[in-house]
Amino acid sequence: MKKILNKPEDFVDEMIEGILHAYPNKISALNGDKRVIVNKTKKENKVGIVTAGGSGHLPVFLGYVGDGMLDGCAVGNVFASPSANKMYEMIKACDFGKGVLCLYGNYGGDKLNFEMAMSMAEMDGIQVKEIRVMDDIASSPLTAKDKRRGVAGMVFAYKIAGAAAVKGYDLEKLISVTKRALDNMRTMGIALSPCIVPEVGKPTFSINEDEMEIGMGIHGEVGIEVSKIKTSAEVAKMIFDKIATELSFSSGDEVSVMINGLGATPLEELFIIYRDLFNILSGLGVKAVSPHIGEFATSMEMAGLSITIMKLDDELKTLLLHDANTPFYTNANKK
Amino acid sequence: MKKILNKPEDFVDEMIEGILHAYPNKISALNGDKRVIVNKTKKENKVGIVTAGGSGHLPVFLGYVGDGMLDGCAVGNVFASPSANKMYEMIKACDFGKGVLCLYGNYGGDKLNFEMAMSMAEMDGIQVKEIRVMDDIASSPLTAKDKRRGVAGMVFAYKIAGAAAVKGYDLEKLISVTKRALDNMRTMGIALSPCIVPEVGKPTFSINEDEMEIGMGIHGEVGIEVSKIKTSAEVAKMIFDKIATELSFSSGDEVSVMINGLGATPLEELFIIYRDLFNILSGLGVKAVSPHIGEFATSMEMAGLSITIMKLDDELKTLLLHDANTPFYTNANKK
Repeated sequence: MKKILNKPEDFVDEMIEGILHAYPNKISALNGDKRVIVNKTKKENKVGIVTAGGSGHLPVFLGYVGDGMLDGCAVGNVFASPSANKMYEMIKACDFGKGVLCLYGNYGGDKLNFEMAMSMAEMDGIQVKEIRVMDDIASSPLTAKDKRRGVAGMVFAYKIAGAAAVKGYDLEKLISVTKRALDNMRTMGIALSPCIVPEVGKPTFSINEDEMEIGMGIHGEVGIEVSKIKTSAEVAKMIFDKIATELSFSSGDEVSVMINGLGATPLEELFIIYRDLFNILSGLGVKAVSPHIGEFATSMEMAGLSITIMKLDDELKTLLLHDANTPFYTNANKK
Repeated sequence: MKKILNKPEDFVDEMIEGILHAYPNKISALNGDKRVIVNKTKKENKVGIVTAGGSGHLPVFLGYVGDGMLDGCAVGNVFASPSANKMYEMIKACDFGKGVLCLYGNYGGDKLNFEMAMSMAEMDGIQVKEIRVMDDIASSPLTAKDKRRGVAGMVFAYKIAGAAAVKGYDLEKLISVTKRALDNMRTMGIALSPCIVPEVGKPTFSINEDEMEIGMGIHGEVGIEVSKIKTSAEVAKMIFDKIATELSFSSGDEVSVMINGLGATPLEELFIIYRDLFNILSGLGVKAVSPHIGEFATSMEMAGLSITIMKLDDELKTLLLHDANTPFYTNANKK
């Protein structure tokens, strides 16, 4: 197993220790529990925004805890949901009197545990709501949209909701704008190579040397099809065309694009495909603003990338460009 | 070849086009030449800081052109130096009347071309000096230090020199502090897998599945030895011990650490090894400030990492923490 680590069973805790050592002024472990990370600058009088999920996707999830994004994140083992109890402790710690939004990816374990945690929090009198992110257009047809998985679009959702909270939105209005952002956003990805769960020690699946998997999930969930490796321009067009079946694009529209490397993809390739997508958008008169290009939601050493397109209106654009500063996200270069 | 690109011969130009589309307010192509990237916010009355080098190492080199770091970068083909003419055009464009520092990695082609370009610029009456970065401790013994390669430590050098320029240092004082930073800095890396030059189409070298290459260069230059894969704690100790043969560390010292992923290494692993190095430093009473953890100087899809340690004094620390904002570097999260 070609990994730099110590004991595989310590992978998650040691990774979190490294992050806490690196950003001691920004984040902390809730009551010393490394599996619940909270923003160190406690924000009063705002809606709390929390998430949770398995490890192996840095910067997702805990990397977005910080000013202008998330207040807390419960951290599971690799590809595994954290427990309902951890989520409950987090929700309590992130209730500043205006309610808490649980904003997370649409996966069975996370949903089960979050809903249990929310019931516990409600018994304490905390106002708590949830939004599950389902941006992966390849994971289920539109007719069964609520089965879709949440992938890199989660980061845009954290950004929009986080900014709305800082700007003083109440819970209802915050939920409304976050849902609108999600309605205006789709993601699709391709994978060139698998990843290795440390405690398993072997690849999650296999792809032939000359092939790519289209629409694969960030845990290696099966995609739409396996094809010969396409060019960057072909991949950009294929993903854009698929997204355009559900989102309409007209001249004068503004969008923000996320080109997300899955872990092992060279930065050079992310910028080549951004060029190809930019050309498609420009050809339609669509303006690309605030591009997000890099690693936002990964699968350890998986090679491949995803493209997220979010259509903007004035309010969404303002929230996207609002200041944020977390250990793994600053929008200094995205304005 | 598992890459997302179009024609291999267009790899560099299309990558640069993508970067220019992404950051139109920050950088531009000098007189429309994509192979010479300059800061869009022209700075008057400061020393100009320029670099150059081959492609395939993003964010090195062009990613550091911007406020607080580089004024210009000439961009070569993958792993190949740009021409002396491009460097000369860049030096002229980045002369703001206080002289120009050419700050680049110690590679034969870059040295040859930069020295030719500097001669041409001097004939125009431009005051121009050079510093070659030689931070890779594994690439040559101390007795032949001027044969050492420049690797990730270049980024620290850009940061120090760039901040000194913005703060109004004259060329002589700027060279002095940049040299002191380099004297106080060493880097060493390990590689787990090779990379593929697009126009070649096959791996630059091979490593067995259970082995790692210690001290390898960022173009695949041979290292010190091939060993069985070590644990993160062992790698951290091995690299620290090697660096400590040339830099002394005492209780109360402050250092900044760069944990640099070579391209395909999961972020999780970079934080695990930061934890292990942090523990070594803490055990000695050495304080780690402003850690830089992520991808700073890569080799496309090479797996592996390098560790750079820079000892700080008050002046170096002030310069390191001074504001910088380039397409691939902001120190918002490093303060």
